[in-house]
Amino acid sequence: MSRMAPESRSGFSVFYVVPTRWADNDIYGHANNVVYYAWFDTVVNRFLIEEAGMRPGVDKVVGYVVSSGCEYFAPVSYPEELELGLRVVRLGSKSVTWEIGVFPGSGDQTAALGRFTHAFVNRDTGSSAEIPVTIRRAIEALPSVS
Amino acid sequence: MSRMAPESRSGFSVFYVVPTRWADNDIYGHANNVVYYAWFDTVVNRFLIEEAGMRPGVDKVVGYVVSSGCEYFAPVSYPEELELGLRVVRLGSKSVTWEIGVFPGSGDQTAALGRFTHAFVNRDTGSSAEIPVTIRRAIEALPSVS
Amino acid sequence: MSRMAPESRSGFSVFYVVPTRWADNDIYGHANNVVYYAWFDTVVNRFLIEEAGMRPGVDKVVGYVVSSGCEYFAPVSYPEELELGLRVVRLGSKSVTWEIGVFPGSGDQTAALGRFTHAFVNRDTGSSAEIPVTIRRAIEALPSVS
Amino acid sequence: MSRMAPESRSGFSVFYVVPTRWADNDIYGHANNVVYYAWFDTVVNRFLIEEAGMRPGVDKVVGYVVSSGCEYFAPVSYPEELELGLRVVRLGSKSVTWEIGVFPGSGDQTAALGRFTHAFVNRDTGSSAEIPVTIRRAIEALPSVS
Repeated sequence: MSRMAPESRSGFSVFYVVPTRWADNDIYGHANNVVYYAWFDTVVNRFLIEEAGMRPGVDKVVGYVVSSGCEYFAPVSYPEELELGLRVVRLGSKSVTWEIGVFPGSGDQTAALGRFTHAFVNRDTGSSAEIPVTIRRAIEALPSVS
Repeated sequence: MSRMAPESRSGFSVFYVVPTRWADNDIYGHANNVVYYAWFDTVVNRFLIEEAGMRPGVDKVVGYVVSSGCEYFAPVSYPEELELGLRVVRLGSKSVTWEIGVFPGSGDQTAALGRFTHAFVNRDTGSSAEIPVTIRRAIEALPSVS
Repeated sequence: MSRMAPESRSGFSVFYVVPTRWADNDIYGHANNVVYYAWFDTVVNRFLIEEAGMRPGVDKVVGYVVSSGCEYFAPVSYPEELELGLRVVRLGSKSVTWEIGVFPGSGDQTAALGRFTHAFVNRDTGSSAEIPVTIRRAIEALPSVS
Repeated sequence: MSRMAPESRSGFSVFYVVPTRWADNDIYGHANNVVYYAWFDTVVNRFLIEEAGMRPGVDKVVGYVVSSGCEYFAPVSYPEELELGLRVVRLGSKSVTWEIGVFPGSGDQTAALGRFTHAFVNRDTGSSAEIPVTIRRAIEALPSVS
């Protein structure tokens, strides 16, 4: 896979502030590669809860992560206020792929670019399911990006 | 140990905002008891870095946690913006004990009360060490509480 | 609170192996104080699932952690195979207090001693509840300790 | 990116046991997508420490993660003993790409397949660096796979 290049904020639809935590840093004094995925989960689920009415633990149709990935361009550390930009890069009938740009508070270049795909499943039957209409509408209402 | 009762914001010297993360919630849909300690570390170390000039990974004298504890009064969840109040309850020559109140964004009662003790150690010798003067001064400069 | 002293393996009823993980280490190269609580949760819940038939996400009566604490005597690090000893120090009608000793693979002295109290709650009503009989029996069947 | 298919154990060079932890499970009762990366870090660094003499916090040339990803085929949960298979899929002069298969204790099909790339850097200068010879030799000594 060829390395992608950093991008600017104009490529993302909506932003969330995520402060780093002490435990995010590893022995090298930078946020560990693992914790980026915890940030990604945090912003995508916040979007789903706040904009699409998702109710974790109650909804019968839920999105399971079937694929994830991240390119790391520059380190970030604790303490730092990150801004995470969110965009949707593929919207299918039963799955959606998100990309998340990690911006240091004062920068316009992604320090990292993550992505993951949610496939929707009916928890009762285990079968794959259509994306709930409230989630589809919230995604379609996202500002388009350059 | 007898259960302590919730306290109000007036009992704390300084406050920090800590947003919860998706991964903070456990299978019961509440922040897991473990993650509170990650919040405590985050605010105490932020105080030490921002107010006392601590440089993790560089300083020769560092504080190791020798004791910690938490009382949980009411659950908190993701997504939620917490405010964490910090105070010092014991300042010795070589150790300091912090207490941290966890406040939901809109409440004046602690949802939890944590505490931990840092004992200072010289990393080169492994011997116990005096609290660095910059840290002592920053602690002494904290507003006193009711 | 006075510092407790390290204890030997004979003080614990049952043991579980917990290998450390890379992310357990913090910037100082030792397991961070927070992660000990994740180990404690892991062994107590494993006991409850394997010996007491607990079914997380299904059971109506569940144990919520209302208090926790840990004394740290000596650092442990990744990579290392820990053995965690478990004992019950108080068994009430509606709550139980566990203590967990952290032993390095090759040592007979606790590197840390943790404790936490589960208070049982009916998830439907939110009211406090009797300890389920299967859990009580499993606790009573634990070997007594010196 | 097309979905990959599960693979068998014969495709991996060396295996490590990784027991899941209580906190690995999320609100849906399965190991959260994030924690797989903590497992990957754990086995790769264990290989580097045990087979290649890596000394985290001491070595001047270290591997930083520049890219990571995971495909999830089937859920795993706490409590469960996983076996993680490791293989090297690309060995350059200054970087190495690892793949890690996640096997439930009793199965011969990957529940997930992760990968990440370490790029080596001189910590003093920040410049990219050749893979240390001890690491290269340890990688070259790995059993080849089908």
